[in-house]
Amino acid sequence: MAADLCLVSGGLGPTHDDRTVELVAKVAGRSLVLDEALHEEIGGVSRSIAERLRRPYADFEPGVRKQATLPAGAVSLGLAGTAPGMVLDTGTGAIVVLPGPPSELRRLWPRALETDAVRRVLERARPPGRRVLRFYGASESAVAKALADAGGDGRGVEATICARDFEIHVDLLVEPGAEERGETLERALVDPLDRYLFARDERPVEALVLDLCRARGWSLGTAESCTGGLVAGRLTSVPGSSDVFAGGVVAYADAVKEAELGVPSETLAEHGAVSAETAAAMAAGVRARLGLDVGIAVTGIAGPGGGTPGKPVGLVHLHAETPEDSHGVEFNFPSDRETIRARATAAALHLTRRLLSQERDSRV
Amino acid sequence: MAADLCLVSGGLGPTHDDRTVELVAKVAGRSLVLDEALHEEIGGVSRSIAERLRRPYADFEPGVRKQATLPAGAVSLGLAGTAPGMVLDTGTGAIVVLPGPPSELRRLWPRALETDAVRRVLERARPPGRRVLRFYGASESAVAKALADAGGDGRGVEATICARDFEIHVDLLVEPGAEERGETLERALVDPLDRYLFARDERPVEALVLDLCRARGWSLGTAESCTGGLVAGRLTSVPGSSDVFAGGVVAYADAVKEAELGVPSETLAEHGAVSAETAAAMAAGVRARLGLDVGIAVTGIAGPGGGTPGKPVGLVHLHAETPEDSHGVEFNFPSDRETIRARATAAALHLTRRLLSQERDSRV
Repeated sequence: MAADLCLVSGGLGPTHDDRTVELVAKVAGRSLVLDEALHEEIGGVSRSIAERLRRPYADFEPGVRKQATLPAGAVSLGLAGTAPGMVLDTGTGAIVVLPGPPSELRRLWPRALETDAVRRVLERARPPGRRVLRFYGASESAVAKALADAGGDGRGVEATICARDFEIHVDLLVEPGAEERGETLERALVDPLDRYLFARDERPVEALVLDLCRARGWSLGTAESCTGGLVAGRLTSVPGSSDVFAGGVVAYADAVKEAELGVPSETLAEHGAVSAETAAAMAAGVRARLGLDVGIAVTGIAGPGGGTPGKPVGLVHLHAETPEDSHGVEFNFPSDRETIRARATAAALHLTRRLLSQERDSRV
Repeated sequence: MAADLCLVSGGLGPTHDDRTVELVAKVAGRSLVLDEALHEEIGGVSRSIAERLRRPYADFEPGVRKQATLPAGAVSLGLAGTAPGMVLDTGTGAIVVLPGPPSELRRLWPRALETDAVRRVLERARPPGRRVLRFYGASESAVAKALADAGGDGRGVEATICARDFEIHVDLLVEPGAEERGETLERALVDPLDRYLFARDERPVEALVLDLCRARGWSLGTAESCTGGLVAGRLTSVPGSSDVFAGGVVAYADAVKEAELGVPSETLAEHGAVSAETAAAMAAGVRARLGLDVGIAVTGIAGPGGGTPGKPVGLVHLHAETPEDSHGVEFNFPSDRETIRARATAAALHLTRRLLSQERDSRV
């Protein structure tokens, strides 16, 4: 094996098309042997699953044996789910095998780091430094140009520019000794794009919104039409969000916008459900109705049906309101339903972040 | 090139680390040439983006030139976003290059099918048949065992068994001539697992729930605590859901459960927010409050904090109620926050599907 460390994930299931362990054994020139302790452990978990499903355990046994069979000499990392992780010392390095589901992988990863084989690899490694920049509103091209203008990456700094969740994520990996070059590149990216920079760490925007509210002791709620709960879903994905986020209304039908958010029927009749006026009334409505400090509202046309020449698919009105300020924006990005909804969700969170940050700055 | 058709997606962006086109040219032994018409097309799109962002277009030009540069002889498929798709006829087959974002890929795929190069490949292909089975509640092991008991795949039928979204998805690809074997395998899977089979097509469970409501003229709403809007988010992901789904309440704080869903404070005090009683009151509450036929409720402890010995992280109560019937379930799958929420969302949708299907059957 040429690499010091080989990381593999997935393909550890009980079925015949999961072949990772078999292939790792082949590559490492090891035979496959049943790990008795592991067999018992997976058997125990599977027995309780079988009981819960009221299925005979015998149905599970072939899969259990398969999952408990490891290359000779491999160290089992134990279970997360029913798939076992393992580490194999190849003499020149280590092969780490982890389950595919991200949550199970994350649970076993710390155990892999504690094995002798992985420790020996890490002891002789020199980790690069990492600088993280997160932009919203800047184009990938503009970020790439700023990087190119500064001479591009290389010379000890590796740059990746990645468009994700309608944000631009820049990671700079800085080799030991290239710290100065890393700082120069970071400045070259931040200087022309400062107004789009929203984070120098990996906290997602929903966590930033919650933190900004928390710092002022403000509670938060959502009023969503076309995003159908996705803004609330992202806010509540953050552990501990319940001390800030109280709840929200998914007001898909106009009747719900009126009855639950107090949007005046005249506003709906005059301006339509997708309008700046309705978005503002929804944000004010969720604050009043639920007794909250900050309200976020989204109304738009996600398509594929429902568009008109005046209000095409992709038109979205967003509004955020706090006890001190209020701001609405309109955007129009024609696309498919899933993209429009995801983009509107991201835009609503960034609008709220900006509103809360400006206010904070003006008070300092 | 050994394959008749090579499909590549992604790596078409304007930045230096997107190298797909360059590598395709290398593999096919072609030089890279600027496509003038494409250059103009991408330039037009980028100019309007530059205007919207109030950035000089010059920032975009290098990226535009890069994206308009194709291997000699390639046919451009036009744009979805700013990344162009293309097809290259290699003489023995075709290379299709599409953008990475799924929505853009989907938009350009039909155009790829219309090119001469791809048509020629398809004309000499014999497509396999496809049988789709979707199970909920059966384990991957049980499905694998049923397949093995029937002799496994092979002999003209390729089976894939995939656990996804807490469902088991089975796809049988049946070569021309192996139709009988395909039917035998399908029967062997369905017979022992019939009660878990919920679809023989690819409609997701949220679409099935909407269809079951639609068939009876029933409206639908959600009352969510720990899932924070994700059930509503999945229901509204389906185009045309607005004729069935009216809205919902994300009742994260207990005050919102009381005020917006009419959950009695005694119920909360006596049984707690995470209880069968509260889930039932939430389902009834959203029906009454929003004037709807069907209510789906979820309350649980998603963690990582908030668990107690009596009510641990992973405990979730679900409830669905229609004008004719009502059903609640409790489940307890300790896991990380993201998994618990996703699993509770899937479970809520399947509970509602089952309740609506049983009722329909009992009326036939």
